[in-house]
Amino acid sequence: MTVIRDRMEQLIRAKQLEIVKAMERFETPVSAQTFHLDEWTRDDPTEGGGISAVIQNGHVIEKGAANISIINGFLPPAAVRRMRADHSSLIIPENEDDKLPFSVCGLSMIMHPKNPKAPTTHLNYRYFEVQNTDGTPQAWWFGGGADLTPHYLFEEDAKLFHQKHKDALDIADPEYYPKFKKWCDEYFYIKHRKENRGIGGIFFDDLSNKDPEVLLKMCEACFDAFLNSYPTILERTINLPYNDEELRWQQIRRGRYVEFNLMYDRGTSFGLATPNARIESILVSLPQHVSWEYMHEPEKGSIEEKTLEVLRHPRDWLN
Amino acid sequence: MTVIRDRMEQLIRAKQLEIVKAMERFETPVSAQTFHLDEWTRDDPTEGGGISAVIQNGHVIEKGAANISIINGFLPPAAVRRMRADHSSLIIPENEDDKLPFSVCGLSMIMHPKNPKAPTTHLNYRYFEVQNTDGTPQAWWFGGGADLTPHYLFEEDAKLFHQKHKDALDIADPEYYPKFKKWCDEYFYIKHRKENRGIGGIFFDDLSNKDPEVLLKMCEACFDAFLNSYPTILERTINLPYNDEELRWQQIRRGRYVEFNLMYDRGTSFGLATPNARIESILVSLPQHVSWEYMHEPEKGSIEEKTLEVLRHPRDWLN
Repeated sequence: MTVIRDRMEQLIRAKQLEIVKAMERFETPVSAQTFHLDEWTRDDPTEGGGISAVIQNGHVIEKGAANISIINGFLPPAAVRRMRADHSSLIIPENEDDKLPFSVCGLSMIMHPKNPKAPTTHLNYRYFEVQNTDGTPQAWWFGGGADLTPHYLFEEDAKLFHQKHKDALDIADPEYYPKFKKWCDEYFYIKHRKENRGIGGIFFDDLSNKDPEVLLKMCEACFDAFLNSYPTILERTINLPYNDEELRWQQIRRGRYVEFNLMYDRGTSFGLATPNARIESILVSLPQHVSWEYMHEPEKGSIEEKTLEVLRHPRDWLN
Repeated sequence: MTVIRDRMEQLIRAKQLEIVKAMERFETPVSAQTFHLDEWTRDDPTEGGGISAVIQNGHVIEKGAANISIINGFLPPAAVRRMRADHSSLIIPENEDDKLPFSVCGLSMIMHPKNPKAPTTHLNYRYFEVQNTDGTPQAWWFGGGADLTPHYLFEEDAKLFHQKHKDALDIADPEYYPKFKKWCDEYFYIKHRKENRGIGGIFFDDLSNKDPEVLLKMCEACFDAFLNSYPTILERTINLPYNDEELRWQQIRRGRYVEFNLMYDRGTSFGLATPNARIESILVSLPQHVSWEYMHEPEKGSIEEKTLEVLRHPRDWLN
């Protein structure tokens, strides 16, 4: 039987193609715009690489990416020590020169649709493994999540997104959804604005308290939760009419998205701090057209204010 | 004779009005667009406040601000301890409950012109004082600088801006310009992009190695260096024709400006971390229209590539 890391790699490779196909289905009837696939390796190719799949100026998706990466390397004892708090099975090497082999693979996705009524979405699932010198896992964990960022709130979309993700997590543990929903709300909080990036979803990290087979299946179900909700939401929203004022609101909200990603997102700061990081793959999460206006506040009683209200007070979508 | 902190306050109040007037001179012949002045106080008004002067959607300045603030408060021993490395005259209070009074006043300015041929500019001069319980200064210092960020490089503008600032600094010390020019290039470095935010200017902090009268005069001369160079640069550039491709390049470059301000600028992170910070005054530095494109590279041999080349290899403009 193949090891978990190989099966997670197979999973993200397959899901990347499924996501690309699901999104291109919206583009191709109207234009020939498709995702541009770009395979890359690290400076030392034995350390792995990835495949970026990016779309820009699409008919439906203004900017989007579904990137996978499969990286191998060696962790210095200092890095192992930092991880030990969450992973007690890790053995800290005695000598500063002894490094532990690790593997990480994941899929990271972002979609910024053109229509301001269609929500931005983000997804990321990854598997991390620290190995013994014989290649067997010494410690391993899953991390990731998916969340939705509407500029105009449609409650049925928020409910569908959350319900599908709850169903997926319930496969592994009915305690996961409430826990990971809360974790998501806490993680995507823009502290200086006192508001959330979006209407949430799920978020988890350092997850290893079940059989890895169960968690791998759960990740697969989470990918499918996304594939069974976001395209439905797009279908409902991408043909809604919009005007310049609504585009303006979209671009202001995207400014908040940029603020979160550049100032708080640990994935972004970790990525950029990695030696020889692929900057463009990391910053592909930033929307194409963004705006900052001084002292902008939506009108009292407006639909824009209603969205902001929900971002300021995260809701329980399923009860 | 009035104390230095009062005279610095008078200086920034006067220079705010001069800057507003200098910029409005470009706006008013064409439109009625002027700066919006907005006076504010801290929650506890004895802790001070400020005056924001902001323009948005101007004919020439798409977004600009010249904000002053005059703040008083008390520093806990931990904060005094952090400052002690640069200011040996500071006496660390014996009890954790003893706090030292401080005053800080400064002017912080940013101008993002609409025309992509006209450069963005930023300026900030401030005076900081930690006081004894009787109100006399225990330690004090000046900080600040001014820098220019062209999207299209005109060498004469870069030279004029640097020459005027060199002349101003030479009043105090001929060693300042080379030192502060280098400091500016090092400070405004976007590490993950391996490029500078702009073509530099001057930057200094914790400056107290001269008579405060000399440094106050130098600050005044620096304000005038700006007032005697930037309006000239605007006059030369704001009527130059531009097309959509040049606007696109401007918006991409502004993305880099946002990356610097949100990820590296100590003023921004310090400001946002301050309790009851006025978020809008801090983030007014962000441009109105910004764009991120995946893997954008200017064409080989293009004028855009020439600007990028200078941002990647800071130049000595005066020799």
